[in-house]
Formats: sequence, structure tokens, C-alpha cells
Amino acid sequence: MKIHAIGGYSEFGRNMTGVTVGNETVILDCGVSVDKLATLQGSGEEEVLKLPEPRLISEKVAPDDRQFYKKYGRQVKAIIIGHAHLDHLAGVPVLAGKYKCPVIATPFTLEVLKQLIKKSRPLRNQLVMLNAGSTYKISNTMSVEFVYATHSTLQTVMCVLHTTEGDLIYSVDFKFDESPIIGQKTNYKRLKELGAKGVKALITDSTRVDRDSRTMSESLVREMLKDVLLWIDTKNKAVIVTTFASHIARLTTLVRIAKLMNRIPVLIGRSMYNYVTAAENVGLCKLSREAILVKPRENRRMLKRIESEGRGKFLIITTGHQGEPNAMLVRMADDQMPFTLLPEDIVVFCSEVIPSPVNQANRSVLDKKIKSKGVRIFKDIHMSGHAAREDMREFLKMIRPQHYIPTHGGIIKLSNAIQLAAELGYKLGKDSHLLQDGQELDI
Amino acid sequence: MKIHAIGGYSEFGRNMTGVTVGNETVILDCGVSVDKLATLQGSGEEEVLKLPEPRLISEKVAPDDRQFYKKYGRQVKAIIIGHAHLDHLAGVPVLAGKYKCPVIATPFTLEVLKQLIKKSRPLRNQLVMLNAGSTYKISNTMSVEFVYATHSTLQTVMCVLHTTEGDLIYSVDFKFDESPIIGQKTNYKRLKELGAKGVKALITDSTRVDRDSRTMSESLVREMLKDVLLWIDTKNKAVIVTTFASHIARLTTLVRIAKLMNRIPVLIGRSMYNYVTAAENVGLCKLSREAILVKPRENRRMLKRIESEGRGKFLIITTGHQGEPNAMLVRMADDQMPFTLLPEDIVVFCSEVIPSPVNQANRSVLDKKIKSKGVRIFKDIHMSGHAAREDMREFLKMIRPQHYIPTHGGIIKLSNAIQLAAELGYKLGKDSHLLQDGQELDI
Amino acid sequence: MKIHAIGGYSEFGRNMTGVTVGNETVILDCGVSVDKLATLQGSGEEEVLKLPEPRLISEKVAPDDRQFYKKYGRQVKAIIIGHAHLDHLAGVPVLAGKYKCPVIATPFTLEVLKQLIKKSRPLRNQLVMLNAGSTYKISNTMSVEFVYATHSTLQTVMCVLHTTEGDLIYSVDFKFDESPIIGQKTNYKRLKELGAKGVKALITDSTRVDRDSRTMSESLVREMLKDVLLWIDTKNKAVIVTTFASHIARLTTLVRIAKLMNRIPVLIGRSMYNYVTAAENVGLCKLSREAILVKPRENRRMLKRIESEGRGKFLIITTGHQGEPNAMLVRMADDQMPFTLLPEDIVVFCSEVIPSPVNQANRSVLDKKIKSKGVRIFKDIHMSGHAAREDMREFLKMIRPQHYIPTHGGIIKLSNAIQLAAELGYKLGKDSHLLQDGQELDI
Amino acid sequence: MKIHAIGGYSEFGRNMTGVTVGNETVILDCGVSVDKLATLQGSGEEEVLKLPEPRLISEKVAPDDRQFYKKYGRQVKAIIIGHAHLDHLAGVPVLAGKYKCPVIATPFTLEVLKQLIKKSRPLRNQLVMLNAGSTYKISNTMSVEFVYATHSTLQTVMCVLHTTEGDLIYSVDFKFDESPIIGQKTNYKRLKELGAKGVKALITDSTRVDRDSRTMSESLVREMLKDVLLWIDTKNKAVIVTTFASHIARLTTLVRIAKLMNRIPVLIGRSMYNYVTAAENVGLCKLSREAILVKPRENRRMLKRIESEGRGKFLIITTGHQGEPNAMLVRMADDQMPFTLLPEDIVVFCSEVIPSPVNQANRSVLDKKIKSKGVRIFKDIHMSGHAAREDMREFLKMIRPQHYIPTHGGIIKLSNAIQLAAELGYKLGKDSHLLQDGQELDI
Repeated sequence: MKIHAIGGYSEFGRNMTGVTVGNETVILDCGVSVDKLATLQGSGEEEVLKLPEPRLISEKVAPDDRQFYKKYGRQVKAIIIGHAHLDHLAGVPVLAGKYKCPVIATPFTLEVLKQLIKKSRPLRNQLVMLNAGSTYKISNTMSVEFVYATHSTLQTVMCVLHTTEGDLIYSVDFKFDESPIIGQKTNYKRLKELGAKGVKALITDSTRVDRDSRTMSESLVREMLKDVLLWIDTKNKAVIVTTFASHIARLTTLVRIAKLMNRIPVLIGRSMYNYVTAAENVGLCKLSREAILVKPRENRRMLKRIESEGRGKFLIITTGHQGEPNAMLVRMADDQMPFTLLPEDIVVFCSEVIPSPVNQANRSVLDKKIKSKGVRIFKDIHMSGHAAREDMREFLKMIRPQHYIPTHGGIIKLSNAIQLAAELGYKLGKDSHLLQDGQELDI
Repeated sequence: MKIHAIGGYSEFGRNMTGVTVGNETVILDCGVSVDKLATLQGSGEEEVLKLPEPRLISEKVAPDDRQFYKKYGRQVKAIIIGHAHLDHLAGVPVLAGKYKCPVIATPFTLEVLKQLIKKSRPLRNQLVMLNAGSTYKISNTMSVEFVYATHSTLQTVMCVLHTTEGDLIYSVDFKFDESPIIGQKTNYKRLKELGAKGVKALITDSTRVDRDSRTMSESLVREMLKDVLLWIDTKNKAVIVTTFASHIARLTTLVRIAKLMNRIPVLIGRSMYNYVTAAENVGLCKLSREAILVKPRENRRMLKRIESEGRGKFLIITTGHQGEPNAMLVRMADDQMPFTLLPEDIVVFCSEVIPSPVNQANRSVLDKKIKSKGVRIFKDIHMSGHAAREDMREFLKMIRPQHYIPTHGGIIKLSNAIQLAAELGYKLGKDSHLLQDGQELDI
Repeated sequence: MKIHAIGGYSEFGRNMTGVTVGNETVILDCGVSVDKLATLQGSGEEEVLKLPEPRLISEKVAPDDRQFYKKYGRQVKAIIIGHAHLDHLAGVPVLAGKYKCPVIATPFTLEVLKQLIKKSRPLRNQLVMLNAGSTYKISNTMSVEFVYATHSTLQTVMCVLHTTEGDLIYSVDFKFDESPIIGQKTNYKRLKELGAKGVKALITDSTRVDRDSRTMSESLVREMLKDVLLWIDTKNKAVIVTTFASHIARLTTLVRIAKLMNRIPVLIGRSMYNYVTAAENVGLCKLSREAILVKPRENRRMLKRIESEGRGKFLIITTGHQGEPNAMLVRMADDQMPFTLLPEDIVVFCSEVIPSPVNQANRSVLDKKIKSKGVRIFKDIHMSGHAAREDMREFLKMIRPQHYIPTHGGIIKLSNAIQLAAELGYKLGKDSHLLQDGQELDI
Repeated sequence: MKIHAIGGYSEFGRNMTGVTVGNETVILDCGVSVDKLATLQGSGEEEVLKLPEPRLISEKVAPDDRQFYKKYGRQVKAIIIGHAHLDHLAGVPVLAGKYKCPVIATPFTLEVLKQLIKKSRPLRNQLVMLNAGSTYKISNTMSVEFVYATHSTLQTVMCVLHTTEGDLIYSVDFKFDESPIIGQKTNYKRLKELGAKGVKALITDSTRVDRDSRTMSESLVREMLKDVLLWIDTKNKAVIVTTFASHIARLTTLVRIAKLMNRIPVLIGRSMYNYVTAAENVGLCKLSREAILVKPRENRRMLKRIESEGRGKFLIITTGHQGEPNAMLVRMADDQMPFTLLPEDIVVFCSEVIPSPVNQANRSVLDKKIKSKGVRIFKDIHMSGHAAREDMREFLKMIRPQHYIPTHGGIIKLSNAIQLAAELGYKLGKDSHLLQDGQELDI
């Protein structure tokens, strides 16, 4: 069995891994660098994805699969996508076409992919819908099983590759949430079965492996939000909450809290609309019935309505928590929208600052702008969607793979994961492996 | 009315404020610097408090009240203590004797004070017990009313000084907890009444005024602890939780969680014993019935019992969260106790590192030691007991004092509080005041 | 005597102070916020300065002198500018017109001002040239004396206001350099004379008062540059040094080092051209004879010449050290100029990152871009132009003013300066004063 | 050829590497963890080194050579020590005895070793003195050549192992100083010859490989010290400079500056005495003629003399720059010595804080103590003795080894070095190697 580290092993983002058994290969995830996407972005991320493939590779937006394609391109049998975030998915419209094989994902992930394709570039690959708990036969030597996992977006799965040389689990981005707001818990039972049977290799993310402790449940965010929003004096003030558009569970929480506040929830911002629509299309939520889901072209009209009907009647749920230049909250702060932030209005950051210098600067500028308008800020009301060090330890103990391969982070993050594995008896170079983009591992 | 900034206005700790109306003066709080106490500490904090008064002043443990005493000492009519933490209370055995007046506090605060006196130096002042909601007449021109407030220890009050020149509220250390584990909420109704009637001056702490957001409820710590302790695999492993000994509400939470884990809760560590006993003496909890409360001289015996009966049967609740050299957890880590930390044992820091360089170093050393034993660490499971910036804003809006005087922090913290007041229209030097230790303000 | 804190007392930048004696007033410095200027900047800073005065005030680019103007505007007798940096000077074209009085400055400062006026908006005030060491009689009650001081630009002076109520020294931005590259040392003799005679008030900057130690000489930067540039292997590689355009002394050092490297020095970048031209116009340097000083419209042609003649033949001295979006180095990094950064080319940051989040983000992005091209980076080769804590202590001991008023920084910086003064016996509110923008002090 | 990573590959300190060719092995460096040494230290580091070998290994003071010893112990032909710092040398008295082979080092290194042996435990191994520029034949298959390198102590060498399988260079801790205060420059000529001939493997340190830029010359420290000490007003004040005792070049600088200040230089502190004596014993300096070199038992008498003759007459050069609990400056700050620190006395930290939490806390406590006495602090007057990233790049380009193995640092530092090598075309696992303590590499 060969593992091909194509993207996401030398930096955070643009995940892409290949696995070869005999003369058959599959691709696991095909994402972009969200950071790089943002710096290129003019009139929307979909526009960037229309740029020529070589440009997107040289700009380090898409994974550099050229060397891999040359050697293994013709024997790729499937592209499997674990969840709907852009760093796992958005490379598909760019790179998938040249591989003559289906793209396999859960319904929600496929729905987000279809939206992306519609707005960026056409894709001829067959799209195969696979639910968590099901298995798809790729070829005589390989099949893929989806195991349900909790994360910060819907229908996330761990991909179990059953091969003639043993099982490989690819689980990049997940948490162990005991009280998820939407959907069930991670399928521990199946993971333990797989572990008991013997797993040849585990590829998993190192995003938060440097944080001691465990990542706590999304349900705590609900309690935090209640503690803040139901206590402070919001009378006649605007209350604006900004969070991740793809985090449907959290949007659901916010819509429910709006009811407790006797305010009408308003979901506004382009990607907010896109993700909610995708979730509704596959029947995962009905937010457009419980809240006002604003179509992108009606953003300005809605804001005018809020101004005229009274800002104290609505709970505005929107984009901009990282201070992204084109996001709704930022445009409000820049007085580009028909809505004026007033003293004692309230802005709640239901997120943490993703630690890249661009985000840190953008947020710092945003914070200053809205503070100078007299707005009250509440921040860091958030729980991560990524397993922390002690979750990862439990995971490793559950699976006890013969080989451990961390991904999703630069060499320093991966080194941290290698250290965790060392605490459990793994030895670097023997059964734990530090790969960099472009490298190949034979096990 | 004169405000005397005696201690706590130039640094964090050793709080002491005087208020003079006509020719009568009262003292509000009389604490020590916990940091300085720790660096002097040999065989226990009580030993330090036996040192001569001039030494304790020159070592900056006790407030420097010499200049104040010379001018106003003979006209002091009362010493009023707001709550039972050492930075508000422990200066009493050192300094109070020379003031010929009673010491006024709530029952729990008095109980902790009595313990301290018994172990350090005798005190002849009369001790006056006053409950929250009650008022005590100090003289013809002054009386003090206690208003209940939530904080990280029991029976904390805001002190309202009713004087012939108007009301002064002294509220140093509190939070606004909507779901306290023990006791009721802060008495907002009374605060609003006082505000409506008009308050001449508000003295309040600036501890967390530099943190945007609101300080959330202690009940969230319970949910976090459940999320961690009921999920991770603790079978046959020691589980040790370390937290603030004076935080009886949190100890209660931990004892209850022990039951859910089918473990016997064990409260161990000298100050753990002292605070719990004080709380029981005044009827505020019955922890010694629900848990094993270990007498200091039986610490070693108890630990041996845990070793022999099986570490998997107990939940050890103990001291040492700041890495203090003599605390129980630190002595375990140093192999000085008859209990060996083993790989995959679990240590939960139910606290945050109080940001002084000594604490940071102590904790860093402790973390390394226990990690090198293979212990699993969970940290920062904590909610502060101090109002954050947006809580403080609500408080100021509730009271709308004529004069605002921040305390408890160095000049930088106080400057931050002055900025908050400026956002609400206060002007430095006119109706908001930046005092330093040793200064006097006439209003 | 009244001190009016107009700008620079609540934040770093846009310095402006008024001083009133009897019914006559002078203005000391009239700058802009360089940070705010940068965020508004489209096609050049001069364009921004053309915006209407109310807009520049409301955007916090120019000091808010409205309240001051209403009360004292008609009695202002002079506007005095201490040195040629934009945060002290660039408010003149915006605000000076409405004050019917002359603008007084040294020749170099006036030259930079004239350039600015030419490109932004006309100014009718009379310009009065005053050399260091000279005195100008403003009115019967006031005259101003310029005392030479070292700083990071040329002809910086401390302004001594001789009034009927005593002397005031305004010394905002200086260092004590014992080996300046250009010009003499600070005039200590005169400062000591003034101190001996008695100084009523000292207004000075708190920029680096939080740094222990002393700010060392600019001549050390020369030694550092030699140590780096004469040692590393630069053969056939581009060597690009980026530094402050207004720092003529450092440019001189770099031009001399180019000779030692047998390279032709090239000064390129718009503000590089402007400052060097201003310095030459008043006879302070002859850099255009020793180096190629590139006119802004010939930038592209020059870079093409370097590409064709061989990058190993030139030392490129340019702008962009803070990662400013339109600066030359940044445009090279973005492939917008006819010059390609190649692997092993060398970029030397002869500066430090000025700690604002925008700079930090811009530099972080720039560093990543040029590193990803394989460029070698040398950074922080720099000595500040601002007195550090121990320099400031010597200064205070030299002058021993009756009143000490720190400026240039937010409340936290000013608090630090107040603490330094406290170490020397000054008392806050009595003889040291913490002013905020818009406040007035009567002494 | 086999490389054995024994110590210093998983953390900073306790360096020890083995190299095997055929059935012969040599050991390169044999140090201790200075951090761990300090935490165990009671009555001096020599006392700690008397503890039993297994204890010193389990406490992580000495490298864990047990597994290595079992497999290769009997075939070790030499122990070679590169320079006189404890993290390279002080493991010799602990571990060397069981290897039946000589210890090879330069005269100064041997002298320091002999002192250590005398005070800790006897050693029976033969001591072989080898000068830089010379070669020693170890066996028929191996010889070692010493190549001179600059560093922060005297007679540092790179060790070139000439073997039948090619040359290996072990160069752990060096800088490229073009103007060293004592001794010549690094022998670049020989390094280039070796590079041209072909080097099989290079083992070098990663201490400062994460710092962009180049490490500048020690001669700059002299200029900085002059700029500070000859400018500030020191009249009748104590001037105390604290720096590294082993840094004889810097001590020499300080002694010379004392002359310029018309002060008598006094070298005081136990390790100051030891290192200077060692250097004098081998004829490398004559500091005891130019300065008062205080014998440890005469420390108190000397300080009394300074008090009585006048503190303004001496320049005190001493230990304590990291705030180490028993060092001279710390004991002065704690009032344990017959010398009182007075207001406006001057303390110069001619060092940087070595970034471990213990040092950071110790220094923070020390700084506060001396500041509270009114002492003036000057800090960070220092240049490192370790090659930075761009020095290391030049080194790699000089040598172009077939295999690159970084050491001296945890996995994160080593990962950084691997990235640098990647920029020069090396590939992890192929020709650059990330080893952890206990691992073996076959090349």
C-alpha cells in the first residue's frame, strides 16, 4: 500500500491524499487553501475557481497534483470527499476532470459541490451519493465505507477504505461531540469494531493536536449564547451575531435563541444563503421557515426594512466573523450598506479568530471600526469543530492502527501529532510517519 | 467626602480604601498581596502573617496605611470586609488592631477571618456579623448596607455606605451570574433602586475590564466538566481535579460529578479543608457528608488508602492549580506523597493561570513534570468570578454614579476602566478618577 | 498657563498641542494619523489630504481642533512644527489655514511641508524659517527658541517657549545619539542651562518609555549592515534594502556601504525621491551625486535596466519595509514591476515592524510572498529614533521641570511615563499630568 | 555509517551523538541539561553531578545512553568534546567512565573538564589534548580533525571525522563572527576544502535556525556597551554588569570599558572565577592582571570593600543574568550580601533571557525586585553565539553534505532546520533526516 501526500501535509488547507493498492488508486479529499483563495478573491470565490488550473496550482490555491497525476493519474478509480468545507472539496471543479472516475460523497457534501460547480466550471465526473453507514464498491480490490462523525458542518464522515491489503481510515476533521445540536453522535461502535479487526493505517488531522484538553460540545455554545443574549440589556438595540455559514447546527441554535428574545431571526450574507439552501435541499433543516433567509440580491432591501421597522425587533445572523473584506458585517462597519451601526448596538462574534496574520489583521481593523462607533462587542463564544489532543489520544486508542500518518498542518503541527503518537508507543519512521507534500510512503 | 486610596490602586492585591465624611472615617477591605505572600511563604501563609507589621508593609504584603493612619487613624469608626478572599481580608490580623473599631462582614467571611486569626495573631477588635440585605448603623453620620452579589466565593457583598453626603457603593470583585450553583443571583432590584435614588460615588474593580464580552455563569463549568469527565476513558485511572479551595460552589459541582462517575469524591489539601470547614460552620454546605473531607494531618494516610483500594474508585479534588510549590498536586508531581502518578492518569485544571510570571513559571514546570509521567492534562475548564467589560458597562448603567473610581489593578488596568467610563460619558479628572496608592480624592 | 491637549494624547499619531498665556495662544505640531492615512489611501497620501477638513477630522486622520478653535482660534499667534514627520506636520495643509498666523519650522521641515502643500492643497499662512539655536519673537509675551536634537530625520528641534509665565519645553520625538551619521549631537549644554534656570513645564513623548534601557546610536546600524552585507555571499544576486524614506542619515550609510560592496546604489520609490530631494534643496546632502536617485516616473525604466545590466551590480534602496500595499518592494513581490525576485536574492529590512495590526499583517504577508520565491531575508537591522526609558530619565533629570506632561501614545503609554516620573518624585495630578485629547490643563 | 541520536535530538541540552563505521564507534559530545541541572541544584552544580548515574539519567540531567551502551559500548574508541559549555561537556564525569577510551578536546575545554572532575567525581579515562588545526588518529578506520570556529566561549571546534566511509562533520554550536574579540575567525578555508572534497554527513545545531537574518559580531556588543555606559550619568552610582561567565571575550570587553570609565573592574561570582581561571591556566587571557578576580570565599570581603571605598570607583562584572537563585546579583537583590543596591544604581543585563519558563520567571522576579529598589535597568545588550538561519544556509552551501542531520532542539526546532534544508533541495527521509533521541540512522 502506498500513501501519496499531495496536499495539506506542508501547510494548513488544500487537502489531498492518494492511496494505491496494486495498480489501483483512490483520491481522498480535494480541497483548496482558503487563505490563498481569499487573497486572490475579487468578485467572489467562485470567480477564482474559474482561473486556469496551472495558475491555481502555482498560486498555491489548489493542491499540486502534477507529479502524482503523471505517475498514477490513469489508474485513479475514485475521488472521495469527507465533508463540505472548501479545504476538502473546492479543488474538485479544478482538478477532478482529468481523472476519469466518480466523485463520492454524502448528500449534503454533494449538494454544496453542485452549487460550486454551477458557479465556477462544469464537471463531467459522475457524482455518487453515499450515506454514512453505507459502503460502495470501487473495484475488485477496494471499497469505501462512510462512518458518521460529528464536526462543524453536516454529514461529515470518516472514510474507511477496505482493500486487499487491509483497511485504511481517512478521518480528516472531526470532533467527538456527545450532544450535537443536529444529527447523531460519532459512530463509536463501528470505529471500535474496525479497531478490533485491525486497521493498517490511519490518516487523521493535526489541527488542534497541540491543544491540551478535549474539544467540548457544540451544545455549550447554546448555553453561552443564552447566558449572554438573554441577560444583557438589548432593548431597541441591534443585535448582530456573526458565525460560520456552513455551521448549520449553530445557525439553528441562533434561530431558536431569537425566539427566546422575541426577535425575528434574519439570516443574511451570500454564503449563509448558499449553505442553508444546500442543507434544505437535502432535507436537513427547515431554517427558511423559522427565520428570514435573505436572498443575496435582497440584502439591501432587508436591511432597509430592519432600519424602518425597528432594529430592536430582529436578530441579525450574518457573515464577517474573520473580518473578511467583502462580508456583510464588514460592509456594515464600512457604511456601505443601508444600515447604520449605532452606539450600544451589540455584535457577538460566535467564532474564534483563525490564527493567520491576515485574519488577525482583518479582525483587529473590524473590531476598532465598530468599537469607534460605540458598538458593544462579545467575542470568542465558540467551540471548535476539531478534536483536541486528548480526543485524538482516545481515537488512537480506539483504532490502534499499524501505521499513523498525521496531516492537515505544517511540519510543526505534524511534529506535535508525532509526539502524541510517541506517547502511545509509536516510533517515527517505523509506524508513525511525517510526510510532506509530494512525498510517497510505502507500507 | 474624601476617598483614600490606601492599597490596590497601584497594583493587583492588598486592597484597602478609606472613606471620610466630616470627621468620621471607615475602612473598606483590608487585604494582602497574595503574590508577595507566596514569595515569602515558608511553612504556610499563616506563618507569614505573624511577621512584624512594619516588615509586612515594607515587603509589600500588607497595604501601606502609615500615612493614612497618622492623619485619620483615630477617627476610624469601622472596618468593612466585602468577601473572604485573602486580598480583601488577610490584612485584618496585621493592621486592624491599631484602629479602635469593629470589623464588619458576612458570617462566612467572619468565619474565614476567625480561622486566620487563630493561626496567625490575636485580634481584639469586635467582630460584627452582618447579612446581605441588612444595614448596620456605624455612627450618626454613616451606616453600611450589604447588597448580595455573586462571585467565586460565598456570601460576597457590595458595601453601600449611606452617609450624610450621599451614598457610596464599594463593589470590589463580583460577577453577574444568572445561574449560580449556590445562593441567589446578585440583588439587581436593590442596585436599581439605589441607582434611581442617586449614588454619589462608585468604587469598583477593574480586574477584567480589559476583556471584551461578559463573564459567563459558573453553571457552564458544570456542563464542561460533565462533557470531559463523563466521556473520556478513565477506567482504573486516577482522576485528579484541581481548583480554587475557596470556590465552594465549584467543589459542590465536582462532588456531584463524582457521583455520576461512580467515584468517591475526596477533598484533600490544607486550604481545601479550611474553606470547606468554614462554609460548614456557618451552614452553607454539607460537603463533608457527601465527600471525604481530609484533615490536613491525614493527607498521607488517605493517599495510601487510594493507592491500596484502587485509584479508579475515587475522584481527587485538590489544590495546586497555579503550581504553588507546597500544594498537594505539586507534591504528588514531585514524588513527595505516598501516591504515584501513572501514565494515563488524568489531571484536570479547573482554573486558569493567574497571569503573574511566578504562576506562569510554576505551572509550566508542573505541566512538564506531570506530562513527563505520561499523565493526560485537561486545562482551562473555568469561568472567572470577575465582571468583564460588558458586565461592568451594565453595572455602570444601573448605578449611574456621580463619581466613578476604579480600583484593583495597576495603572494600566485602571486606565482601561477609565476608558470604559469615557464611553459612557465620564470625563477623567471631573467625574472619573484615576487614583494611585497613597492619594486622596475630595468629591 | 494653559495646556490644550488637542491630538496625540489618546492615541499614537496626529500630534497637536496648544499653549495659552494670557490671551495669546500658540500651537505646537499639527500632524496626522499615519495609520488612518494609510487605510484611506487610494492614489497616494497627498490625495487623502485633499479631502474636506470635516471628513479628515471625522475619519480621525487630522486632530479634532473644533472645540479648541472655537474658544482660542482667534488668539493663535503661531503654529510651530518640531520636525518633518507626517504625524507632526501633515495636519498643516488641512487645519492651519483658519488660524491667521505664521507656521514656524526649520528649513528641512519647511521644505517637506512645501512639497506636501504643492501636492495637496494651497496654504496662505506665512512660512517662517527658524534654525536650531535661534529664537523668534512671536509677540510681546512669547518667543520660541529651537534647540537641536537628534532623531530619525533631519533638523529636528525641541521647541522652547519663553513666556511671561516661564519656559515650556515641547520635545516630542528625539533620541540622544552620541554618534549621529549626519549633523551634531543634541544640544545638551543649552538644555542644562534651561534646566538650571528653571522650566515651568515639559511636554515630551512617551513612545518608547515602556522599554527599559537606552536607545543606541544610529552608527550601530552602519556596523550591523557591514557585518551582514559584507559577509554573506551576494554574488550575482539582487540585494534590496528597505528602510524609512525620511531617514536621510541611514540612506547615506547605505549609499556608502554600496561602494564597499562595489555596487551602484539606487534610491527608488516615490517618498524616497521626495525626502532626498527636500534634503538636497536645503543643502543637507548630495545623495543624487553618489547614488542613482530615481524619479518616480522612471521607476520601471530603472528596474528594467537593472535586469538587463545584471542585478549583481546594484544595491537597491527602497520603500516597503512595513509591507505597505503600494510601496516598491511590495509591488516587486506582487510581480507588478519589471523586475523578478529570484531564489537567493537578498532582502534586508532595515527597520522594525511598527506594532499596529495592519503593519503586522502587511509584513507577514510580504515576508511569506518573498520567502516563497526563495528570497533570503535579513530583518530588524535597526535602531529606533525615540528615547527609551533611561534616556527619558536622564532628560527629566537634566530639565527638572515643575510640571511634566507626557504625550504621543494612548493612555497606557502615558501611564507608563507617569510611572517613570513617579520614580523621580513627581505626583500624578500635582506635578505630573495625564491628559486626554480634548482636555485642558491649568498650571 | 550509522548515526546514533543519544541526546539533544528531542529537547535542547544534554547533547550526545554516536557514529559507527564498521565495528568501531565514537561519541561526539557528552553534555547535560542545564535546565534540569538548575532545578535539582542545591549547593552547586558539582554536587548534582555526584548523584548516581541512573538518577541523573532518570531525572533527564544526563543523556540516556543505556540502550546505546548495551549495543555499542564495548566498541567505542573515543569521546570527542567540541567546546566547554556544560550541555556538551558535563556528562563526561557521569557517563564516560564505563567507556574504555580517551576523551579528546581542546586545551581550554579540557581545563574546564578537569575543574569539573575535581569537584564532582573522579574520571579514569585518558584525556587527549588536541588543538584546532590538528588531527588525531583514533584507529585504523577513523581519525578526528579539529577545525576552529567562533562561538561564545573559547577554543570551540567543529569535529571532522575522517572515516573509511567518508567524512562526517559534527558542528554543534558556532557562529560566523568576522570580528571576534579573542582569537581568529572560523577556518572557512578548511571548510571549503572539505566541502569541495565531498562530505558524507553534516550534523549541526538548530538552536537559532528559526531566526531569519544573520547572527552579528560580538564586536557590536562592545560598541553597544560603550554607547550605554559612557553616556549615562553614573557618578557615585554602582554599575553592575551581568553576563555569561564562560564568555571570556565579553569579559575582556567589559574590563576594557571599565578603564574607559575610570573604574576598577571586579569579576565576582563563583563560575566567573572558575572560567577565568581555566582560561588563564591555558594562557588565553590575563584578566586577573587587568581586573580584580575575586576568589569565591572572598566575595563578601570584596563587596564590603566596594561599599567602604565608594561604589562609584568600581565596575562590578558578575553572574545572575538569568535570575538564577544562587547567583551573585540575585543574592544582592535579596539583601543577602554585604552590599546594598541603592536608587539610581545601574544594572546592565549583557545577555538575553534564554527562553525557558523557569528563566523567564526568575528574571521577571529579579527585575521587579531591583526595580522596586529604584535601580535603573539596561537589558538585552547581547549578540548570540549561535548561527542564525542565513548563517546556516551559508554553511550548508559551503559544505554541501550528502546527508544533513540537525540536532540540539526539540522536534519543532529540528523541523525548522529540515525546512531550511528543503529550500536548498534536500528531501526529508532521503538526504535530510529528522532523528529523535534513541533513534539510529543508517546512511
